[in-house]
Amino acid sequence: MLTNISGFPEFLPKEQIAFNKVIEKIKEQFELYGFIPLDTPAVERVATLLAKGNDSEIYGLHRLAGDEGAKEKALALRFDLTVPLARYVAQHYGQITFPYRRYHIAPVWRGERPQAGRYRQFYQCDIDVVSVGELPLIYDAETLSIIYNVFKAIGVERFIIKINNRFLLTGMIKSFGVLESSVDLVMRTIDKAEKISKDALDNELRNYGISQINTEVLSGLIAKRLTNKEWIEYLESIGSNEEFFKGVEELKKVMKFLKDFGVQDQYIQIDPTLARGLNYYTGTVSETRLVDFPELGSVCGGGRYENLVGSFSNKRFPGVGFSIGVSRLIPKLIEFGVIHANQETTATVLVSVQDPALVPFYIKIAKTFRIKGVNTEIYLSKASLAVQMKYADKKGFKFIIIANQLELEKQQIILKRLSDGKQTLVTINQAIEIIKGA
Amino acid sequence: MLTNISGFPEFLPKEQIAFNKVIEKIKEQFELYGFIPLDTPAVERVATLLAKGNDSEIYGLHRLAGDEGAKEKALALRFDLTVPLARYVAQHYGQITFPYRRYHIAPVWRGERPQAGRYRQFYQCDIDVVSVGELPLIYDAETLSIIYNVFKAIGVERFIIKINNRFLLTGMIKSFGVLESSVDLVMRTIDKAEKISKDALDNELRNYGISQINTEVLSGLIAKRLTNKEWIEYLESIGSNEEFFKGVEELKKVMKFLKDFGVQDQYIQIDPTLARGLNYYTGTVSETRLVDFPELGSVCGGGRYENLVGSFSNKRFPGVGFSIGVSRLIPKLIEFGVIHANQETTATVLVSVQDPALVPFYIKIAKTFRIKGVNTEIYLSKASLAVQMKYADKKGFKFIIIANQLELEKQQIILKRLSDGKQTLVTINQAIEIIKGA
Repeated sequence: MLTNISGFPEFLPKEQIAFNKVIEKIKEQFELYGFIPLDTPAVERVATLLAKGNDSEIYGLHRLAGDEGAKEKALALRFDLTVPLARYVAQHYGQITFPYRRYHIAPVWRGERPQAGRYRQFYQCDIDVVSVGELPLIYDAETLSIIYNVFKAIGVERFIIKINNRFLLTGMIKSFGVLESSVDLVMRTIDKAEKISKDALDNELRNYGISQINTEVLSGLIAKRLTNKEWIEYLESIGSNEEFFKGVEELKKVMKFLKDFGVQDQYIQIDPTLARGLNYYTGTVSETRLVDFPELGSVCGGGRYENLVGSFSNKRFPGVGFSIGVSRLIPKLIEFGVIHANQETTATVLVSVQDPALVPFYIKIAKTFRIKGVNTEIYLSKASLAVQMKYADKKGFKFIIIANQLELEKQQIILKRLSDGKQTLVTINQAIEIIKGA
Repeated sequence: MLTNISGFPEFLPKEQIAFNKVIEKIKEQFELYGFIPLDTPAVERVATLLAKGNDSEIYGLHRLAGDEGAKEKALALRFDLTVPLARYVAQHYGQITFPYRRYHIAPVWRGERPQAGRYRQFYQCDIDVVSVGELPLIYDAETLSIIYNVFKAIGVERFIIKINNRFLLTGMIKSFGVLESSVDLVMRTIDKAEKISKDALDNELRNYGISQINTEVLSGLIAKRLTNKEWIEYLESIGSNEEFFKGVEELKKVMKFLKDFGVQDQYIQIDPTLARGLNYYTGTVSETRLVDFPELGSVCGGGRYENLVGSFSNKRFPGVGFSIGVSRLIPKLIEFGVIHANQETTATVLVSVQDPALVPFYIKIAKTFRIKGVNTEIYLSKASLAVQMKYADKKGFKFIIIANQLELEKQQIILKRLSDGKQTLVTINQAIEIIKGA
């Protein structure tokens, strides 16, 4: 009873403060590009959730109190933020201005088996641009460029954004004579190519009726290491069908737009075998991996979908979006010192209480600090100055204020900087200047 | 399938942006006082939730996929943020620095009957100070003063903080010869006194064995309209038991501390009959009502508890805390114009696209703006300038940038202010100055 449940992680204060700072930075980046917040309820109708997938790991709701239980079985927790977006757009499209640029930072829930050590609640940071009718390809590049800037902004320097276009892949597979109904299965095979041997891969591909020559082309694609420029040239050189060339053309355009958006080429890696899940995406697909933490796998994924709302509406809502999985990412960045988690307080200053009779004066000092925007705590529990110092050190305050009758009579306070223990006798206004300049 | 579920409200973009701004202000106030964020998972063990209450409206979880269902029945959604705090403190107390000052802004879930028109998901903004062993009474006043400052900060001027001390009330009830086991029931009766007639009240009180003279004292207390000073004098004048006087003494001290914290007396209203729920609270209790929106009832409540963690630990963790219910409050403030919801964008500037060939230049302009911290969107869909203007107007941008080959050759852009349509031909840097000064 005394522990949180496995798979439902929570942070200690220092980590929580660091986590929130990163989320704040991500939000700031999203808003810098004019994305607007969305916050749908955690709960959707089961029918809504199942319309967009067949996730057997959805958490349904029931009321603990007996007989009402059944009635609530039509409700469940969302497993991603895209289905709620689809439902929201379909429901409110008359009251939304398009192109609709929304971000959504919130937890999602998946009924994973606890023993697998996977999270059952985790945060996603999503951005999507959704339009009615048409959505130009340049938005694929814009959203990707925001993801690029987000990683830079949170202090991650070594990452690779893999990019592909599904038309290219599906076009090629179809050109190999694979049945329409098997295209997804072949893609699934290619998706796991990293994890199986070349022989096993070739065997599987042949089972779908792909000739030896063509399996060689495919496994060649997987093994090839080319620069982005070389990939485009190579892809343009190999003959295939119209769908394939549409994919290559779109990929080329997105690469050009990415350059316009200032995304440096060494962060981008064309990968013609990247499939990114199934069914859902149509054109551009992308995954981001951190060079120094390959064990995290893809920390950001997404792409273009022809019609977001699908079965929910008869209007066409094309969109493009990406999702950053922060619940694994941020703790890793903290663990490796990319992000510092060394403050157990949101305040800069601790006003110590030397003389309980002077508390009204300490409160006034704190008030003056706060008016100037300096986050300030007063130590109101009974404790010696030594204990208060220790508290300030432990929690990571930058300054502590010490004052007794003598100082206050002269309208002065002692400002102690905790990094080096330096003490200065100053007026309250001087203290604020020093604190704000620190 | 096309609607969100009743009782699980969601906002349109303008309202969501306004809602988030208020939440941001509340968070800012909490941090100004050095409160630190906590974010426990939405899910707790059923046993943990039931240990602190007997809420028949708890949502339990099960997996949609059949046979795993039963295993998950030990999990449920939290119905408040206090139980998770209690569990968190009991679990992690060795790694938390006390006094622990945490805030928690997050949704909670209650399985209300939909037809009652009550929310089944709503946000709470909680602050609590929790200590080990002792927690001085001054924290009751400090946390209340923060609530006071929060309401001022979000633009609510006309509110009343009702305050009482439960020792006072329980002491008096006991002094009337009521059985220990009936004290809570009598409090519950007094709690609903507003809604029933004086005769009905007197009858109920007499049923608990309270004499006619004493029911007169109690219903007199309910009817009395005194100033805070008069209340203290009156309460001190009426003889009762030790528990009663302890309550009066604490109330008096908290009132004095509130003055030290700069809380103006006219916002505070002593109400000796305020009971604030049952069992949970011990000393100080408080409820806040908005003068202009009495229909909202209490928008903030809380108080002091002798031991937060109760059955979870054998250590004693006294605490004091308050919870603001924002899900009903903020929409009401928007509806009545206390809070403005007139922007459908987080960006200040829209860079229009006049000539698709110039997009790389528009991107550069936007980039320069963003580096200076100006939230900027580029209109990347194909549309006439008139359509782009309309979009900017509708979403509430403050400025729109217009530039074609001619202007860009001279390193100039047209900056149009949307409030009055004023256009100026300026350099990018001049534009940034004007935008930031606006």
